[in-house]
Amino acid sequence: MMTYEAEIGMAVEGLDTPALLVDFDLLRQNINRLAEHFASLPAVLRPHIKTHKCPQIANLQIGAGAVGITCAKVSEAEVFADAGINDILIANQVTGGAKIDRVTDLARRCDLMVAVDDPDNVSDLSRVCREKGVTLGVLVEVDIGMQRCGVQPGDETLALARAVEAAEGLVFQGLQAYEGHLVLVDDPAQRAAQVKEAFAPLEETLTLLRREGLQPDIVSGGGTGTYDVAGAQTPLTEIQAGSYVFMDATYQPIRPEFQTSLQVLSTVVSRPVPERLVTDAGLKSMTSEFGWPPLIGGWEAEMNYLSEEHAVLTLDEPGKVDLQGGDKVRFLPSHVCTTVNLHDDFYVHRDGVLIDIWPIAARGCAQ
Amino acid sequence: MMTYEAEIGMAVEGLDTPALLVDFDLLRQNINRLAEHFASLPAVLRPHIKTHKCPQIANLQIGAGAVGITCAKVSEAEVFADAGINDILIANQVTGGAKIDRVTDLARRCDLMVAVDDPDNVSDLSRVCREKGVTLGVLVEVDIGMQRCGVQPGDETLALARAVEAAEGLVFQGLQAYEGHLVLVDDPAQRAAQVKEAFAPLEETLTLLRREGLQPDIVSGGGTGTYDVAGAQTPLTEIQAGSYVFMDATYQPIRPEFQTSLQVLSTVVSRPVPERLVTDAGLKSMTSEFGWPPLIGGWEAEMNYLSEEHAVLTLDEPGKVDLQGGDKVRFLPSHVCTTVNLHDDFYVHRDGVLIDIWPIAARGCAQ
Repeated sequence: MMTYEAEIGMAVEGLDTPALLVDFDLLRQNINRLAEHFASLPAVLRPHIKTHKCPQIANLQIGAGAVGITCAKVSEAEVFADAGINDILIANQVTGGAKIDRVTDLARRCDLMVAVDDPDNVSDLSRVCREKGVTLGVLVEVDIGMQRCGVQPGDETLALARAVEAAEGLVFQGLQAYEGHLVLVDDPAQRAAQVKEAFAPLEETLTLLRREGLQPDIVSGGGTGTYDVAGAQTPLTEIQAGSYVFMDATYQPIRPEFQTSLQVLSTVVSRPVPERLVTDAGLKSMTSEFGWPPLIGGWEAEMNYLSEEHAVLTLDEPGKVDLQGGDKVRFLPSHVCTTVNLHDDFYVHRDGVLIDIWPIAARGCAQ
Repeated sequence: MMTYEAEIGMAVEGLDTPALLVDFDLLRQNINRLAEHFASLPAVLRPHIKTHKCPQIANLQIGAGAVGITCAKVSEAEVFADAGINDILIANQVTGGAKIDRVTDLARRCDLMVAVDDPDNVSDLSRVCREKGVTLGVLVEVDIGMQRCGVQPGDETLALARAVEAAEGLVFQGLQAYEGHLVLVDDPAQRAAQVKEAFAPLEETLTLLRREGLQPDIVSGGGTGTYDVAGAQTPLTEIQAGSYVFMDATYQPIRPEFQTSLQVLSTVVSRPVPERLVTDAGLKSMTSEFGWPPLIGGWEAEMNYLSEEHAVLTLDEPGKVDLQGGDKVRFLPSHVCTTVNLHDDFYVHRDGVLIDIWPIAARGCAQ
């Protein structure tokens, strides 16, 4: 008899839905492929865990050679420190009294780095580190064209690096520069050229810093779309790629060497007329900011819309589709990082047989 | 000293962020306003809890006169049944072995109704109810123009109602018809006219059902955008409005009689150049499918984009804005239902003083 309690060994088609399915072999293949790429390079991999938010997957990455992890938020870093991961970069600015209190508490129990782009923030971090007697690693974030956070290359970077170097409780460890505006450039040659161009001012800045006696040992950046160029033809020493573990409908055409290992399993709830298919995965199960998630499985279908708890599709050839209420379908996320953040668990399978359930332990850790 | 552990009595400005702030007085005002509206009408209120997913708020609604609650999913209904709420409508089709097993287990411990639009689903539900010796209330969903789920008005509805009536373990309780395609029509007069027109075929269908000896005691539908017309000038006996408790940037212009009681508190993480403001609330804290969430507080700012963990804004008059890293700002969600689903807790305040923390107990309950 069908049951809604998941049991190891069951066919994933019997799971209650919506459910996030991870193909273990494809996940491992993606992790190993990028690890092998970096095995022969001076640059190392510090994968961004915002994609999976799951210590089990971080441990696979570290087991394959990653030097540590990159997080977006302090609360994410807390979850991974709790899970025993010791070498953590929070690749963002940590500001405000509550958050600085929190990050300096965390620095007591793991090797922690944060990004800075403002001298007042450097003072604030330093003061609390001094008060608590803790040490925090710091990367100065440099804006190489993304126009989000970061100081400008050159003198502005030098001044802030000096401020960090001089600040008690802080250790200047290098720079962060993320070419986030280039990771989705379609044409590989154009992407490579633009990445190299974006990092040119950073090269000069590093020369300046070293001439002035500073030691920027770490230069951190890079993404799944740019790992090959960023990891070999720029000054980056650490690459923060994250999405490569799962890929999605947006990233996969750009990086066909990685497989899509994550799907949303969904149940048909209604087929009120032959051409309309309605399933139980809506905006609370899959995100749409990068476009509608495509239906997988050979049926030609156009997404009409996602409402909160429904996917409403029009079938191109209704007569060739025998899906009915209760049948299972699968969607490929269009943006895996935000889709994962909607779920509590990964249902991990090999060839459709459930082999494990991994909690998405840092789901919702936006603080 | 500032602390990141929230304590009752603290100023909400000191909370770690992103954090969902609920203005208790405005929430209560919204709940009471709609309750008072329905106090003098034959139609009753069965509010949709998909908006807040929080038993504390459902209890406020029931305390003000709501007859029970509407849920979208079985897993949501489980959470509210656990919290002691007994009268629950799952306003969607429940299909597939795992889910039917789950909903019939739930029917043992609360008064439960589900929607159906397919005779095979009626058979499946009936069979499992019979096997388990449980009874499930059923509304036949009728499509009155939304083109999502539902049978057609008239004979198709009659046939399915008869199938439910004849099915062991199921109790035919009436119809569901949701004018979801009309709730956001801008012009109130046009909205009213279109709602009345949409429900005309339902009037005829009800007459048909009654003539054939069926008793559709409940007719359920309605939303925040249409509650006044739907609750008085249509055959609806129960209104499922949900968003009125919080409102948002999309709904508020349409229903100015309700106040926006929910905000996203966010911290400035960077102001790398005078005109650019970057805060810590991105797509993992606020959704964008109805547009960017506006910044509140009198600063004129254009949202450049939300990335996963950043809001990136351009200030119109940078010289007039003294926001710096660590300062707090607030956003008004553009779609409150999906935004709430990203968070674990409501930080409930009166005049900016934290009075309670309510878990969003059904957050992520998409199954």
